[in-house]
Amino acid sequence: MSELSQTTRAGTHREAFIIDGKAVSQRVLQEVSEAASTLIAQGVRPGLAVVLVGEDPASQVYVKSKGKAAEGCGFHSVQHTLSRQTSEADILALVGRLNADPAIHGILVQLPLPPHVNATKVLESISPAKDVDGFHPINAGLLAIGDIGRALVPCTPAGSMLLIDEAIKALGLKLAGLDAVVVGRSNIVGKPMAQLLLGENCTVTIAHSRTRDLAAVVGGADILVAAVGRPEMIPGEWIKPGAIVIDVGINRIPGEGLDKNGKPKTRLVGDVAFEAAKARAGAITPVPGGVGPMTIAMLMKNTLTAAIRCAERTV
Amino acid sequence: MSELSQTTRAGTHREAFIIDGKAVSQRVLQEVSEAASTLIAQGVRPGLAVVLVGEDPASQVYVKSKGKAAEGCGFHSVQHTLSRQTSEADILALVGRLNADPAIHGILVQLPLPPHVNATKVLESISPAKDVDGFHPINAGLLAIGDIGRALVPCTPAGSMLLIDEAIKALGLKLAGLDAVVVGRSNIVGKPMAQLLLGENCTVTIAHSRTRDLAAVVGGADILVAAVGRPEMIPGEWIKPGAIVIDVGINRIPGEGLDKNGKPKTRLVGDVAFEAAKARAGAITPVPGGVGPMTIAMLMKNTLTAAIRCAERTV
Repeated sequence: MSELSQTTRAGTHREAFIIDGKAVSQRVLQEVSEAASTLIAQGVRPGLAVVLVGEDPASQVYVKSKGKAAEGCGFHSVQHTLSRQTSEADILALVGRLNADPAIHGILVQLPLPPHVNATKVLESISPAKDVDGFHPINAGLLAIGDIGRALVPCTPAGSMLLIDEAIKALGLKLAGLDAVVVGRSNIVGKPMAQLLLGENCTVTIAHSRTRDLAAVVGGADILVAAVGRPEMIPGEWIKPGAIVIDVGINRIPGEGLDKNGKPKTRLVGDVAFEAAKARAGAITPVPGGVGPMTIAMLMKNTLTAAIRCAERTV
Repeated sequence: MSELSQTTRAGTHREAFIIDGKAVSQRVLQEVSEAASTLIAQGVRPGLAVVLVGEDPASQVYVKSKGKAAEGCGFHSVQHTLSRQTSEADILALVGRLNADPAIHGILVQLPLPPHVNATKVLESISPAKDVDGFHPINAGLLAIGDIGRALVPCTPAGSMLLIDEAIKALGLKLAGLDAVVVGRSNIVGKPMAQLLLGENCTVTIAHSRTRDLAAVVGGADILVAAVGRPEMIPGEWIKPGAIVIDVGINRIPGEGLDKNGKPKTRLVGDVAFEAAKARAGAITPVPGGVGPMTIAMLMKNTLTAAIRCAERTV
């Protein structure tokens, strides 16, 4: 497959640049730590509060990593763990207290919430200035009208944008004017990603499950962002030679053989068939180790941003 | 030109369906009037307040038309005309009073505002529930996250969407899955238009001044929305045969000869070269008489919507 692709492009193709999300996320965390030190020296310690309702094991893992990253950046970090039965009113009251708490600059309510809780209501009760997930309609609106200097941008698309910058530099390209395709239109990834790419003067196409000829749309992309959540749904053969491929999907599929406990092995794959795509792309993110590590790093960056803005308002 | 186009498409082309924006806008106004009557019978008269700062002649004309349309719908209609020298604080105070006025459901501050006034600050001071222009970041955000049931949508793209529906019906098509291209990315037209088309399950591309091959992008559009403000910048030859063309541009250009006062005549044209486009398109809006009349009609519809939501909240 790889050989065929290289042949059809007359031997001009070098192996794709592998975008190292782990390295970029470490760099972001390092920068955030340093900026936090400066801020702390001025008397402001960035503070992140994470609210977890219930005992979902995956959520517990995420919340723990977020708290650990916050501590690693020198932030004040608190975790509120509420039982699954907690009423919506009690959750809203906690958010209200965190909104009013001057030691807290970022509030994150881990999703999913139990079914008896109106998640929209809870998320919209977070002060937009402390909404480090960037899910509040005001933050979505500020991003939509291009006022990024006032918005808090959702972490995964913001992190993907940094990986695109990394690839653009590595390939010696310019971002403005490139044809970008975002596959998937979630409020958390696809739509804000499209806004960010538009802000960088790309021509942006948003494709999704109802798109008629996805292969043709993907084939026109200088920059492809896949955010669908379906394992390897984009064959490598669809990728435009030389394209930058950002794979947001993290899908667990059956692997080969058994693990040491005798259970069938599993492995993580993205929304793009990596090996075949790598043979055509100019740059590509691996899964894992691509977009994944960026999300928490950008959460720390948002918390720092919120703290800096708060300090500026109170000067 | 027309003959050539028809020949190349092997004589299969019938003349484009001309989308009659005047007729559709009249229908909208009629529906709004009827719904307003019902609401008035229940004790709620929709109220629209228009704020004009300064003596800009074009703004005076717009404001007058808006007031007239509101009266035509049976609305309570007030106009506040402030001198050009009015301070930002006084404008904010007026908006504050209108926000608190239970007889007013829609507030519109006519743009442009004088340079000493921060327009963003004034527009964001309007209660989102009364923001019938749909320019507040919360309304932009609700549209961006697909929560149209709670948003107030900007009038020109909302009206354009109705014209697209009209064309879809006339041509016997289905909207979902069509390739839509929006040329222009303003916060008032291009970006919200893209959101609306995405909400209707189109594959949406946003093109703009930095797009490298606009002809190719336009040529792929089943639905083309041109919102650039450059006279006839899209040649008819670019249009995909059978496409639906919505021309938002209203540009005044020199005409032929002199008017009765001896001044050079002028005429209005859109962003699309109409005659040549008509020979290829399946449906097309004329300029004038296309999108133009829809904007005020949708402003009335937004005011009605705001009044209905207000009545529901107070029940």
